[in-house]
Amino acid sequence: MNLDAQYSELTLKTKAKLVLIVLDGLGDIATKEQNYLTPLEAATTPNLDKLAKDSAQGRMIPVAPGITPGSGPGHLGLFGYDPLEFQVGRGVIEALGLGVELKPGDVCARANFATLDAKGIVTDRRAGRIATEVCEKLVALLSAKVKKIGETEIIIKAGKEHRFVVIFRGKGLEGPLTDADPNREGFKIPEVKPRDENNAGQKKMAALIADFYKAALPVIANEKPANGFLMRGIAHQPHIPLFEERYKLKPACLAVYPMYKGLAQLVGMKKIEAQTIQQQFELYLKEYDNFDYFFIHYKYTDKAGEDGDFVAKMKAIEYLDAAIPILLRKKPDVIAITGDHSTPVSVKGHSWHPQPVLLHSAYSGSDKLERFTETGANIGSLGVFESKYLIRLMQANAKMFDKFGA
Amino acid sequence: MNLDAQYSELTLKTKAKLVLIVLDGLGDIATKEQNYLTPLEAATTPNLDKLAKDSAQGRMIPVAPGITPGSGPGHLGLFGYDPLEFQVGRGVIEALGLGVELKPGDVCARANFATLDAKGIVTDRRAGRIATEVCEKLVALLSAKVKKIGETEIIIKAGKEHRFVVIFRGKGLEGPLTDADPNREGFKIPEVKPRDENNAGQKKMAALIADFYKAALPVIANEKPANGFLMRGIAHQPHIPLFEERYKLKPACLAVYPMYKGLAQLVGMKKIEAQTIQQQFELYLKEYDNFDYFFIHYKYTDKAGEDGDFVAKMKAIEYLDAAIPILLRKKPDVIAITGDHSTPVSVKGHSWHPQPVLLHSAYSGSDKLERFTETGANIGSLGVFESKYLIRLMQANAKMFDKFGA
Repeated sequence: MNLDAQYSELTLKTKAKLVLIVLDGLGDIATKEQNYLTPLEAATTPNLDKLAKDSAQGRMIPVAPGITPGSGPGHLGLFGYDPLEFQVGRGVIEALGLGVELKPGDVCARANFATLDAKGIVTDRRAGRIATEVCEKLVALLSAKVKKIGETEIIIKAGKEHRFVVIFRGKGLEGPLTDADPNREGFKIPEVKPRDENNAGQKKMAALIADFYKAALPVIANEKPANGFLMRGIAHQPHIPLFEERYKLKPACLAVYPMYKGLAQLVGMKKIEAQTIQQQFELYLKEYDNFDYFFIHYKYTDKAGEDGDFVAKMKAIEYLDAAIPILLRKKPDVIAITGDHSTPVSVKGHSWHPQPVLLHSAYSGSDKLERFTETGANIGSLGVFESKYLIRLMQANAKMFDKFGA
Repeated sequence: MNLDAQYSELTLKTKAKLVLIVLDGLGDIATKEQNYLTPLEAATTPNLDKLAKDSAQGRMIPVAPGITPGSGPGHLGLFGYDPLEFQVGRGVIEALGLGVELKPGDVCARANFATLDAKGIVTDRRAGRIATEVCEKLVALLSAKVKKIGETEIIIKAGKEHRFVVIFRGKGLEGPLTDADPNREGFKIPEVKPRDENNAGQKKMAALIADFYKAALPVIANEKPANGFLMRGIAHQPHIPLFEERYKLKPACLAVYPMYKGLAQLVGMKKIEAQTIQQQFELYLKEYDNFDYFFIHYKYTDKAGEDGDFVAKMKAIEYLDAAIPILLRKKPDVIAITGDHSTPVSVKGHSWHPQPVLLHSAYSGSDKLERFTETGANIGSLGVFESKYLIRLMQANAKMFDKFGA
């Protein structure tokens, strides 16, 4: 029996309430430039401090040592799905990020507008990074002219600058396919091919992409500079076991940004709309009786990290900290506070550094730490572990597991 | 090559003496109610303190993150056997706990006396939790009347209240089978079936169980309220590689309670009888030249934890600490001191929290810790690791491994 099946066999349905608060990109590294303090260490966090005293801490490896995850793998890990086993195509992630509500069986591709010469050779893969408004205009054109190919519905959605996504909604379609992208200038757009020659759904999908090009290219042939487009990451939604069945927890997602709502929906979480962290916590209170597991996502720590803005990241942490008393009006049985990965200010992007995690429950025990910090997490009782086990520790703290063996 | 085979290939036979001291359920969690001290932290332990200074410490995960083990998986892990790979049926564990000396090929079932109505429907799965003396009387009755079925010897042993075990000792018998237990009242006792339809030993065993019911039920048919019985966890002893062959260490077990002697015998350890921890340490001295590995089991920490008795757990630790100088009269090359799992006072039962471990040898190095505690173990050089690797670290500290690669 594999380990997930073993966990399932031991899982009991309880009335416990579990809350996961994700400060996106929370983890950071201490550097000389910042007086050897991370934003979490420099922040004033009275509410986190109060929790820390009666909590366990540790560090989590989002995927594997040294691997920097995107938001998809970062969150799948937090939801208990091994990100190496459950890989989500980039087309799907892009579509989720643009707020497309995907249906089972949808195949998604991320696409770029590009410049082609008279012979169809790609001369600029990003069409000079056209403005977002231009992209939106072109997408509107394509959407108006190419609504269906055969029985398959085509949904096109504009992104930032030259980027857009195409969703193919029909029967018997499957990915993944090879890319319709030469990956450099000076070559024609290659024909897409099934990754698996014997997969009928992929073959059908490859033919569909060819037909889509035939229908769509003429629509923008006279535009400048974006008279063509490339498609990559063509794949369907992965088959992911539903969260509720896997963990015997009815899950709700309280996120502001589309990407995270989309990732939560991939595993079957119910989406609850909110605009601020205060609203998210208020809605948790309101929905307390309707769900067992609440995923609460907070974006601004990651944004500040990406911008390399130490003070903004510190203030984002303080802002969330100040809202915590709202949540604690109805204290859940288990609270985990962490990031989906690190986004260190000095890196200005996602990184591989294990993120700190705080786990609080009546059974978490105390690591006798006065604060929740990276340095404290290093000496916490949880040690360093893979993110995918967080949900298992949360379940254990909720007394959701039967004893293993006699 | 799998990792165990690799370890075996590197293993050298040496003259080193290795000692494993298991304070059952040692691990605990710090809580506000106990001034943020665990029993191990609150205890006065001069002898452990002296060892700690020249030892390495760490935390061990008994099975997998969040999983609470029974004594069986807890100890198999300490003996170096992956508890997920080597699963011991509950019937076998019950039999070991009642002091039955199992032989290879024995199939064991744990059983309950139950109440049946005139139609054979289970009306009380525990026969009103009859007194242990009643159970013993019924078992004596059954034992007298049902000694053999065909060539198979039947051994029946009473447990506490309504519980007993049945051992089938014959040729070509195998488990596991489905349960002879409807798992709720209002149904008849179901027929047992092989878990694997194509397994001849299981088929034979299923027929034997049916015959056993035919022979045994009439014996107690007129008793009240226990006029029937249910059987569960019907399985044979797992095929476990012998400890001595696997590790090139001749092992002895110094335990007081039957369960732990039984578990040690499962892997081929020689049982040496003792009644107190002082006797156990004295017998280690006496048997020093006859064995290479000594498993010394101490039950009272777990008992106190199960009772939620902080002071009793603390005192149990102090009591063992006071006896350590006996052991050190002949200092072994490697000493490991740990639990088979945590039994936190505040949980009043086994738990999933990684237990602290202390490893002392001429090569363990010092973690510069003045005491052996959960909090110290968090920052020890061994980190957090799975229990099944403890024996490998003990072997390494005994210089029992050849270099891997050039």
